[in-house]
Amino acid sequence: MNTTLPVSELSGHPTPFYFYDLGLLRRTIATARAEAGDITIHYAVKANYNPVILGEIAAAGLGADCVSGAEVGEAIKAGIPAEAIMFAGVGKTDAEIIQALEAGVGCLNVESVEELQVIAALAAERGLVAPVALRVNPDIDAHTHEYITTGLEENKFGIDMRRLDAAADYVAATPSLSLRGLHFHIGSQITVFEPFDVLCERINGLVAGLEARGIAIDNINVGGGLGIDYDDPDGNPIPPFAAYFAAFRRGLKLRPGQQVHCELGRAIVGQCGSLISRVLYVKEGVGKRFVIADAGMTELIRPALYGAHHLIQNLTSTSARTEVYDVVGPVCESSDCFGTDERLPLTQRGDLLAFRSAGAYGEAMASHYNCRSLAPAVYC
Amino acid sequence: MNTTLPVSELSGHPTPFYFYDLGLLRRTIATARAEAGDITIHYAVKANYNPVILGEIAAAGLGADCVSGAEVGEAIKAGIPAEAIMFAGVGKTDAEIIQALEAGVGCLNVESVEELQVIAALAAERGLVAPVALRVNPDIDAHTHEYITTGLEENKFGIDMRRLDAAADYVAATPSLSLRGLHFHIGSQITVFEPFDVLCERINGLVAGLEARGIAIDNINVGGGLGIDYDDPDGNPIPPFAAYFAAFRRGLKLRPGQQVHCELGRAIVGQCGSLISRVLYVKEGVGKRFVIADAGMTELIRPALYGAHHLIQNLTSTSARTEVYDVVGPVCESSDCFGTDERLPLTQRGDLLAFRSAGAYGEAMASHYNCRSLAPAVYC
Repeated sequence: MNTTLPVSELSGHPTPFYFYDLGLLRRTIATARAEAGDITIHYAVKANYNPVILGEIAAAGLGADCVSGAEVGEAIKAGIPAEAIMFAGVGKTDAEIIQALEAGVGCLNVESVEELQVIAALAAERGLVAPVALRVNPDIDAHTHEYITTGLEENKFGIDMRRLDAAADYVAATPSLSLRGLHFHIGSQITVFEPFDVLCERINGLVAGLEARGIAIDNINVGGGLGIDYDDPDGNPIPPFAAYFAAFRRGLKLRPGQQVHCELGRAIVGQCGSLISRVLYVKEGVGKRFVIADAGMTELIRPALYGAHHLIQNLTSTSARTEVYDVVGPVCESSDCFGTDERLPLTQRGDLLAFRSAGAYGEAMASHYNCRSLAPAVYC
Repeated sequence: MNTTLPVSELSGHPTPFYFYDLGLLRRTIATARAEAGDITIHYAVKANYNPVILGEIAAAGLGADCVSGAEVGEAIKAGIPAEAIMFAGVGKTDAEIIQALEAGVGCLNVESVEELQVIAALAAERGLVAPVALRVNPDIDAHTHEYITTGLEENKFGIDMRRLDAAADYVAATPSLSLRGLHFHIGSQITVFEPFDVLCERINGLVAGLEARGIAIDNINVGGGLGIDYDDPDGNPIPPFAAYFAAFRRGLKLRPGQQVHCELGRAIVGQCGSLISRVLYVKEGVGKRFVIADAGMTELIRPALYGAHHLIQNLTSTSARTEVYDVVGPVCESSDCFGTDERLPLTQRGDLLAFRSAGAYGEAMASHYNCRSLAPAVYC
């Protein structure tokens, strides 16, 4: 099997487990930083909050984008400075807001006027000024899976553009709030860049409109969304950061002093992780053959939840013959299926499988369903 | 709000949490046992392996249907005798098979000839005889959601009917295997009973065919599948057990000494559980109002995973006015949505919501996504 995975190092571990290639992670971060130039990268902790991964992120000097108080806590524990942390999310609890304010996070990305009011009151009670960015819903369809498109008018995220002026005025009039900037996010796993061009135009207009009204926008967070190559992780282990950042350098009309931020999760950690599993049974059906793996939707739910596909490699088969299999997990759900009609080298009980590109939204979404233990992680 | 939930008892607890009405659970079990008559009920642990729930199941004398070694361990720990435990699942590991054999479970429900071979070898190495039931794929479409229909030819579950004779012959010829019976399962959340009639006909034919060949079938496990009323949990808190069991009493042609078994999960625990959550924000969108709850897909993934709907009740609003809301969770995913265009009494920040009928596949499928803690449970 042609793979960039270190097969012999993987063979000795009890399965299933997550394997992380920390060398690839470091190269990915280095490439992202080099291509980002003046743009500040915040790592989207929700993609993977494994402490070893977070430690690498912190050591490389990235900021963090957190969506819960617990993520803020993990980011700080990993060594990311509080002021480099943005705290986003539509459902911040009072306790999480207080925790973030007291920790001194760089800003809270605020999703509604109602949330602004709560943050203002909690900050005022403590004699604090809450640094806030307004998350704007730019109403751009990024043409991705409906579940991960978040820029359309009718979803729960962000402040509608028609309400932005009112929200900005509210911040300006409220002593316990300080406007740090605007926040956007148009979706995930975006592989064509036109939506980012549209986003830049939208941002330019909104920023100009606010500045014409005397409201300075010092920070522009363009969100995340850069996709990875799920079909060819060995051929394209590092996402096209240059083209991604070029879209914003080309599209945004910045005045001196304006700082651009982005949030990257999948693009940073997606390709460095694989879920490694052993074949328990090769079951001869009538019209199909099933490869039953010891990893399932409990370890990697993206196929069941989003219909996502992760490249499957048989790491140990030496057969030149290939066969077509449905590759399924052990969980008692029909949705626990990694792929139908997968062409693999002749596969046998005991073979080691890799589900590639599983570094993002893999371990982070694991569950204990069927009373299963969380899979451990192995690093090299 | 008309609800059977004890609202004042729920108000004092930090949210989100699971609430279990143990009185309803006991009444449900008692009804099921009364209606089951001679049919043996095994509780499907995968629906909810909360130890308090399992303790009630054990105290009531039900058997268990387990799909992992860890579930077998939890069932035994709760006090269910090993001989009343069936161990099913397409992906049993060697360690799980050995654990089940050494614990002395009543039988292993076997999903393939390949698995029979593995069990036979592991039992023989230990000088044991493994009690096995053959899970047969009866190829019946239960007309349920594609994810929870498991009786169709092309899925991973069960032995194809055309291979049943060969599998039974293999068991008969193998000293370390002992055939305890046949196992069927045609799907979940079944609310019309015709598929069970079809199943009975199928079972009668298969059993007669095997017995004509000299292979006695002492135990027939008809699986689970009895649905609950997700739309009206207050009106129909206890599923129609009488009609369910009547289908098998009517349909199965039993000879003296044949024992019928069933596996019920959702029907036993579904209605006794509710996910209780507090409203964090009521966000005025442009065309929509959003109720943002502090519970999300991390606590209850069925809406995101299956498009399932749980009845939503505002437990604390005293308004006679109703409004239409999208009810969403705090998780950074568009799929984290409990319902669109839900008509609720006027809802405000701080109101207590109940997501009803969440006793099955709720807590059991929880995740730590977004670094969230697992929700605790409250009982009455």
